[in-house]
Amino acid sequence: MPISEFALIERYFRHGGVKRGDVHLGIGDDAALLESPPGSDLVAAIDTLVAGVHFPLGSPPASIGHRALAVNLSDLAAMGARPAWALLALTMPSADESWLEEFTSGFSALARAHQVALVGGDTTSGPLCVSVQVLGHVVRSTAMLRSGGKPGDVLFVSGTPGEAAAGLALEQRRLALAGDAAARLRERFLFPTPRVALGERLRQFASACIDVSDGLLADAAKLAEASGCGVHIEYTSVPVSEALSSAMGNTAARELALTGGDDYELCFSVAPGNVAGLRQELPPEQWGYARIGVLREARGACVLAPDSTVMDFSHSGFDHFDR
Amino acid sequence: MPISEFALIERYFRHGGVKRGDVHLGIGDDAALLESPPGSDLVAAIDTLVAGVHFPLGSPPASIGHRALAVNLSDLAAMGARPAWALLALTMPSADESWLEEFTSGFSALARAHQVALVGGDTTSGPLCVSVQVLGHVVRSTAMLRSGGKPGDVLFVSGTPGEAAAGLALEQRRLALAGDAAARLRERFLFPTPRVALGERLRQFASACIDVSDGLLADAAKLAEASGCGVHIEYTSVPVSEALSSAMGNTAARELALTGGDDYELCFSVAPGNVAGLRQELPPEQWGYARIGVLREARGACVLAPDSTVMDFSHSGFDHFDR
Repeated sequence: MPISEFALIERYFRHGGVKRGDVHLGIGDDAALLESPPGSDLVAAIDTLVAGVHFPLGSPPASIGHRALAVNLSDLAAMGARPAWALLALTMPSADESWLEEFTSGFSALARAHQVALVGGDTTSGPLCVSVQVLGHVVRSTAMLRSGGKPGDVLFVSGTPGEAAAGLALEQRRLALAGDAAARLRERFLFPTPRVALGERLRQFASACIDVSDGLLADAAKLAEASGCGVHIEYTSVPVSEALSSAMGNTAARELALTGGDDYELCFSVAPGNVAGLRQELPPEQWGYARIGVLREARGACVLAPDSTVMDFSHSGFDHFDR
Repeated sequence: MPISEFALIERYFRHGGVKRGDVHLGIGDDAALLESPPGSDLVAAIDTLVAGVHFPLGSPPASIGHRALAVNLSDLAAMGARPAWALLALTMPSADESWLEEFTSGFSALARAHQVALVGGDTTSGPLCVSVQVLGHVVRSTAMLRSGGKPGDVLFVSGTPGEAAAGLALEQRRLALAGDAAARLRERFLFPTPRVALGERLRQFASACIDVSDGLLADAAKLAEASGCGVHIEYTSVPVSEALSSAMGNTAARELALTGGDDYELCFSVAPGNVAGLRQELPPEQWGYARIGVLREARGACVLAPDSTVMDFSHSGFDHFDR
């Protein structure tokens, strides 16, 4: 049964996320009124998910709600920022209440986990498309940029990249697998974990940071490029999960770890003098990150085999208009 | 010729709008870093335009760029806020460079007029859909809300509502008209003027304010409802432009002024004791607004004929999912 747009917004979005004392006015007026903490930079990101492009048609609505927020939280994590508020622009073909309920539950669960308040919403009819804008804060002039890396800095990545791309392939039946490994890979695509807590703590150690959304190799290359450097990634150092290996074998798994998209992990560089401090303060086994290479003077991004020869990777990331 | 997403963003959006000293980091990293003025509330709005819903398919790209920003600036105007920064999420079927150039020129001209910097962008492939998020500031606790009206407050509207709806009808060939009047009406739909300067100055006088996007009667009703009041609008006081009258006759013109959408004018209430000050500081002939009615205790929104009988209006505004 169709209900009016205003009732829709009222019912599903007014109480999205958490209540926060710094929200002076939330959903329901022409705009939200928000109070930033003194001495901080405001950090703002916007990202859109389009049906059939960023997720398969027929994806679980809870996953779409989760991912629409997660991809933006991941952008803030890459800056080392703490998220505070989100605005949601939802375009959908019709006002399907059960879809909306599941979508909102996925969005809200992640918002609650990160203490994010939903402060603005816009609902329109049209092809399914979700834009989320997240605002957060970081102590002034302490944000991590992509551009701070220097030749010699050690490169790390969090988590086990490639799993989400395998999960998407499973969702699209381009890959066949059953059991626990399949469930884990699917979960990694449908409900990625933005590394917000890690990002906040990394500010103390990292020289540069980027979130891995288009593929590890492509995003490491962007970090290096922005830093005026090149990068060597050591093939055998790229972390590959057991689930991914069991799904497709070691070689294909490692290739996917380098080129698959939708990971929402953090790739970051650390000056050699800060590596010991990083490992001590944020133990890798606890925080889940691994050394994968090094920044260098010569431009370009290369993957090095164990014998130090350069390996060729034709797919270097996801570009919406090029494939 | 298709160009890559990254080149697209780089070429068209990196220098969108103006440069501002409070933008520490703009487009090109994972998120923007922004500095809010001390003692201010941050004001945030998000709005989406979908092809075929908010503008006819085949609309001039410059108009789409202008309107995507204008509807958000209008939301900030309704709060009395000064806009500062915008983020743009653009979904389009293919990377058409001439389309993008015109879209960007429309967006950028309005951004420059209001000293707005484009600080974030996201480009994806999919059905044409534009989400813009605008951030601005207002001196803490001085924003106009919808909810501040009281019975007895005088209701005003800026500009000449209904013209944009007639312009849309002309664009869609549902209305036939030629000459200067037609050009003016089309312009009012394609390139609406958000009332940012008026909104900022109204904070001193208005008890409540809303922007007129869904139709004057519907939005006046929302202001009254949020204020816990009702509203009487005097039929003969509703301003009707010569262009609108010449297009459709006086009666239909006044009905459209009450019910047409897409005006992006301001509807605001002023306590009786502040009306003289308003008229003196912001002369109506200079600022372009008119008295149209009064807030009252009894709930509901009524239009009163000159003999004080209540007139019936069946179309009370635009609701995406109800028509």
